[in-house]
Amino acid sequence: MRDVTKDTITDAFLTYLGEETDERLRFLLTKLVRHIHDFVKETELTHEEWRKALELLYKAGEISDPERNEFVLFSDVLGLSSLVDMVNSSPDGTPSSVLGPFHILGAPELPVGGDMKNENVGDTVVVGGRVLTANGQPIEGAEIEIWQTADNGLYSNQDATQPGYNLRARMTTDTVGRYLFSTIRPAPYTVPDDGPVGELLHATGRHPWRPSHLHFIVTADGYRRLVTEVFPSDDPYLDQDAVFGVREELIMTYRPQSDPSTLPDDLAIKDQLDGSFFVVDFDFVLSAA
Amino acid sequence: MRDVTKDTITDAFLTYLGEETDERLRFLLTKLVRHIHDFVKETELTHEEWRKALELLYKAGEISDPERNEFVLFSDVLGLSSLVDMVNSSPDGTPSSVLGPFHILGAPELPVGGDMKNENVGDTVVVGGRVLTANGQPIEGAEIEIWQTADNGLYSNQDATQPGYNLRARMTTDTVGRYLFSTIRPAPYTVPDDGPVGELLHATGRHPWRPSHLHFIVTADGYRRLVTEVFPSDDPYLDQDAVFGVREELIMTYRPQSDPSTLPDDLAIKDQLDGSFFVVDFDFVLSAA
Repeated sequence: MRDVTKDTITDAFLTYLGEETDERLRFLLTKLVRHIHDFVKETELTHEEWRKALELLYKAGEISDPERNEFVLFSDVLGLSSLVDMVNSSPDGTPSSVLGPFHILGAPELPVGGDMKNENVGDTVVVGGRVLTANGQPIEGAEIEIWQTADNGLYSNQDATQPGYNLRARMTTDTVGRYLFSTIRPAPYTVPDDGPVGELLHATGRHPWRPSHLHFIVTADGYRRLVTEVFPSDDPYLDQDAVFGVREELIMTYRPQSDPSTLPDDLAIKDQLDGSFFVVDFDFVLSAA
Repeated sequence: MRDVTKDTITDAFLTYLGEETDERLRFLLTKLVRHIHDFVKETELTHEEWRKALELLYKAGEISDPERNEFVLFSDVLGLSSLVDMVNSSPDGTPSSVLGPFHILGAPELPVGGDMKNENVGDTVVVGGRVLTANGQPIEGAEIEIWQTADNGLYSNQDATQPGYNLRARMTTDTVGRYLFSTIRPAPYTVPDDGPVGELLHATGRHPWRPSHLHFIVTADGYRRLVTEVFPSDDPYLDQDAVFGVREELIMTYRPQSDPSTLPDDLAIKDQLDGSFFVVDFDFVLSAA
């Protein structure tokens, strides 16, 4: 169309899409372009503002590398990553939550009851529960991947002082769908705020903190893969997670205890516990695939 | 908000914006986040599609450098750049159009009637007209910047075989608001399609061609700066400009002529013209600032 106006440019874009365009892609582009065109029209976006937005994207490209993806971070702090989680969550399962950029493959296998704390400094926490179907039936042989921050708020792949795969494990549920491990209490931490995302956070008076959390990926044959995180009920950032990851159903209580005799016998460090520790119960519910 | 749902996350984002947030920025972010959240909800965007989109942005960052900005190119082929031009265009002036990435500062001054063709291969074109107010009054001393492609479809800063500032000039209008120069007919060219933008174009059956054009920036004290391009009426890509830059009012006719005696006396190459050449008349109308 040679005489494109602000009222016709969206349709002009759509006429450009060839017949060979995949139908889903056509749908996504139609919606996307309508929304960004409406955004420009409703805001009467100036050239200066448009240049500033493109400059933020350019800078995001400059600061990104295989270890740090500033585009994912933009998606996170705008609530986009969490919204994608939510529209894809199963209504009858445990809610999913942000995968984040710190998951790595190849964590060591740990038996049910195994210890992930090792030499790490921090409060001892015993975390356990079951993997269940939506009807409450236990799922045997479900695989659980677990990863978390050390006491300094860093993941092992952010911190050369930690051993490889520190505070990372894979576990397979037992015949009654049970998992159990000991670890340390994870620390709250900040998302990186020294790049263009930080520029946005600072300009809008936002802090970069996330509440502390344990990451889980739970998989079992015949069920939808669950990527989620669980948060302690007393974390100061629960109501202000920089990346909108908290859901009421993902909050667990750290119960302070001092008597190890109440703990299951297959907990590897049961005999080494003295003084105070925390116990957390959390069941995962998987939706049918 | 700890219990964020897909119905509350947009408001949750807004509650995060601190009091110190600039009002215009708050307005832009409110509109932007509403639109991208609605996009995700309306399309039920999958994790795989979300990852693919972020991967395109990551790749755009990788291929961008000070000479090539893939984010600007995304904005161009989605019609966003042109829409920003249109919402900022003055209704009583010549329409603006895409600046593009090939403008550079410091082009040599050329007197009215000067030659920009020099040793370039191509059809000779004599371009002239006036810079006018919205009431049709000539503007003396307006500055016009001109740049265009050589016969091979490349700008001087894309092509080491061209002399510096080849086919670029600045000109100041005379007492009757007139500008006049000789040049070659610019060639159509393609936007770069070897990166993620190309991936999008190919997936949607779109070609990367732009119709040939002359770029102009026209400035005068007391008037709004005009950034625009003008297109020949017989260009094959007028109706399918990859970046949506064509407006009916920006199309000019290349009139074939063979008699140089009809040309103004201050045209520097008037005496050297023989055989066929083209004449183009185009007036620019500036809006009051």
